[in-house]
Amino acid sequence: VTTAPSHQAADQDQASYAFRPIGILRSCYTDKFGIPRQPGLVTAAEARLELYPAYAREEAFRDLEGFSHVWLIFVFHDCLGEGWRPTVRPPRLGGRRKVGVFASRSPYRPNPIGISAVELVGLVRDARGLALGLRGVDLLDGTPVLDVKPYVPYADAIPEAAAGFAPQPPGREWAVEITADARRQIAAADPDGALRLEPLIAQILRQDPRPGYMDRYPERTAFGMRLYHLEVQWRVTAQGVQVTAVTPVDG
Amino acid sequence: VTTAPSHQAADQDQASYAFRPIGILRSCYTDKFGIPRQPGLVTAAEARLELYPAYAREEAFRDLEGFSHVWLIFVFHDCLGEGWRPTVRPPRLGGRRKVGVFASRSPYRPNPIGISAVELVGLVRDARGLALGLRGVDLLDGTPVLDVKPYVPYADAIPEAAAGFAPQPPGREWAVEITADARRQIAAADPDGALRLEPLIAQILRQDPRPGYMDRYPERTAFGMRLYHLEVQWRVTAQGVQVTAVTPVDG
Repeated sequence: VTTAPSHQAADQDQASYAFRPIGILRSCYTDKFGIPRQPGLVTAAEARLELYPAYAREEAFRDLEGFSHVWLIFVFHDCLGEGWRPTVRPPRLGGRRKVGVFASRSPYRPNPIGISAVELVGLVRDARGLALGLRGVDLLDGTPVLDVKPYVPYADAIPEAAAGFAPQPPGREWAVEITADARRQIAAADPDGALRLEPLIAQILRQDPRPGYMDRYPERTAFGMRLYHLEVQWRVTAQGVQVTAVTPVDG
Repeated sequence: VTTAPSHQAADQDQASYAFRPIGILRSCYTDKFGIPRQPGLVTAAEARLELYPAYAREEAFRDLEGFSHVWLIFVFHDCLGEGWRPTVRPPRLGGRRKVGVFASRSPYRPNPIGISAVELVGLVRDARGLALGLRGVDLLDGTPVLDVKPYVPYADAIPEAAAGFAPQPPGREWAVEITADARRQIAAADPDGALRLEPLIAQILRQDPRPGYMDRYPERTAFGMRLYHLEVQWRVTAQGVQVTAVTPVDG
C-alpha cells in the first residue's frame, strides 16, 4: 500500500483531490499536429504505458490480458495552466460553432482529465521495466496516465447512443502517396522497419489531420507534422495527399 | 476562467495533479448496499448532478442535450484514505478469485477515479441552481464529480471488445414481490410517488444486489438496504425476492 490521494479541504465546494500518475505514455505523437481526433483510427500507432516503479508489479495487472481493450485515464498535460473556457469550437465543426466545454472532449476543461479506449497488446517486461503495449492510441508522447481500467462492453459500449453534433467518424478518406525520395528517407531513418513508418504515416494522413478550419484556407497545400524524431512533410494534391520528405528533426 | 489545476512537482515520477469537483451527485443510493454493479441496469434510478456555482452556467453545457448519454468522471470518495491493493476479489467472481486491481473496476485503486456512462435526461435550472438530470446511475449519493463528457459512440462504443472474466451482465433475474404492508409504507413515505419507489426497488432487487460471496451463506435470507431516507427490508424465498418493509431510517 502506497500513498493514498489526499483530500485537502473540509468544505465540499473547496475540496481538492490530488492524484499521482501511475506511469507515462510513450507514443509516436511527439507533436499535437497529426494526432487523430479519436482513438482507434490509426491502428499502426503503437504505444507503451511505462509504469512507475510502485506500480510495475505483474500482480496488479493479473487477468488484464483477457480484455482486448482498456481505458486510459490521463491528464491533458500540455494544457495545464491554460485554464478552461465555458465554450469551445470543436475541430469537427471546423471551428465555426461554439459548444459548451462539457458537450465537447476538448482538453481545456475545468479538470483536464481525458479518457480513451485503446487496444491492449499485452504486458511487456524488459530492461526498462514493466509496460503495457497498446495500439490505436491518440495521445501525445509523455502523457501522464492516472489509471488503467478494463473495457467492459456491457457497461461501456452503448452503440445506440445518440451523439449530438458528432454522430459519425470523419467521412473523408484520402489517398496517400509516398514519393520515392520519402521512401528512401524512411528506410534511412528506420532501417529495420521497427517504427512501421509507412503504414503509420498513411493511416494518419488518410483521415486528414488538418484542423477543421483549414477548409477556409484552400490555398495552403503544404504541411508538416512531427512523428517520433522525424519531420514528415506532405502536400494536398488533386489526387489526395503526397508525402514529400521524412527527415530527422535534429539533422 | 477560474482556478486551473495545479501541477505541484517537477520530477515526473513525483508529479501530483490536484482536481476540484465541478459538482456533487445526488442519488437514491444513500448506502453502498443495493448499488448496481454497473450503470444502466436500474433505469428507475434517477439522479442529479448539482453543479457548483463556478460551473452552473448554461453555456458550458450548450449542445450537450443532443447526446443521449454522458460520462461522469468521479471520485470514489468513500474509499479515500484506504489505500490500494495490487489484487482485488471482484464481486462478479463471488470473491473466490483474485485479479489485478487494474484488471478490475474496484474503487481501491492507486487513484480512486471512476468513470460511468449514464443516460442524460436534461439540464434542470431551479431554486437549487443548475443540475444535470441523469438516469441509470450507479453512484453513491454525495459522490464528487470531476468532469462530464459527451458519450461519443464511434470512439467509446466497442461492442466487440473481449471482456476477460466479466463477459456478461449478471444473468439471474429474480421475481420481486412487494407485500401489501410494504406497499402501504411506500405510499406513506412517498405520497405523491415522486421517488418512484416501487419500480426502483423492483429493478434493484431483480438483479440481486447481494455480494457474490453470499452464495456461500445460503442460510441467510433476510436483508436490508438503504434508499434515500428509507430502510428497505427483503428476503429471499423459493419464488424470488419478497419486500417486507419500507420504513424511514429516522422513524
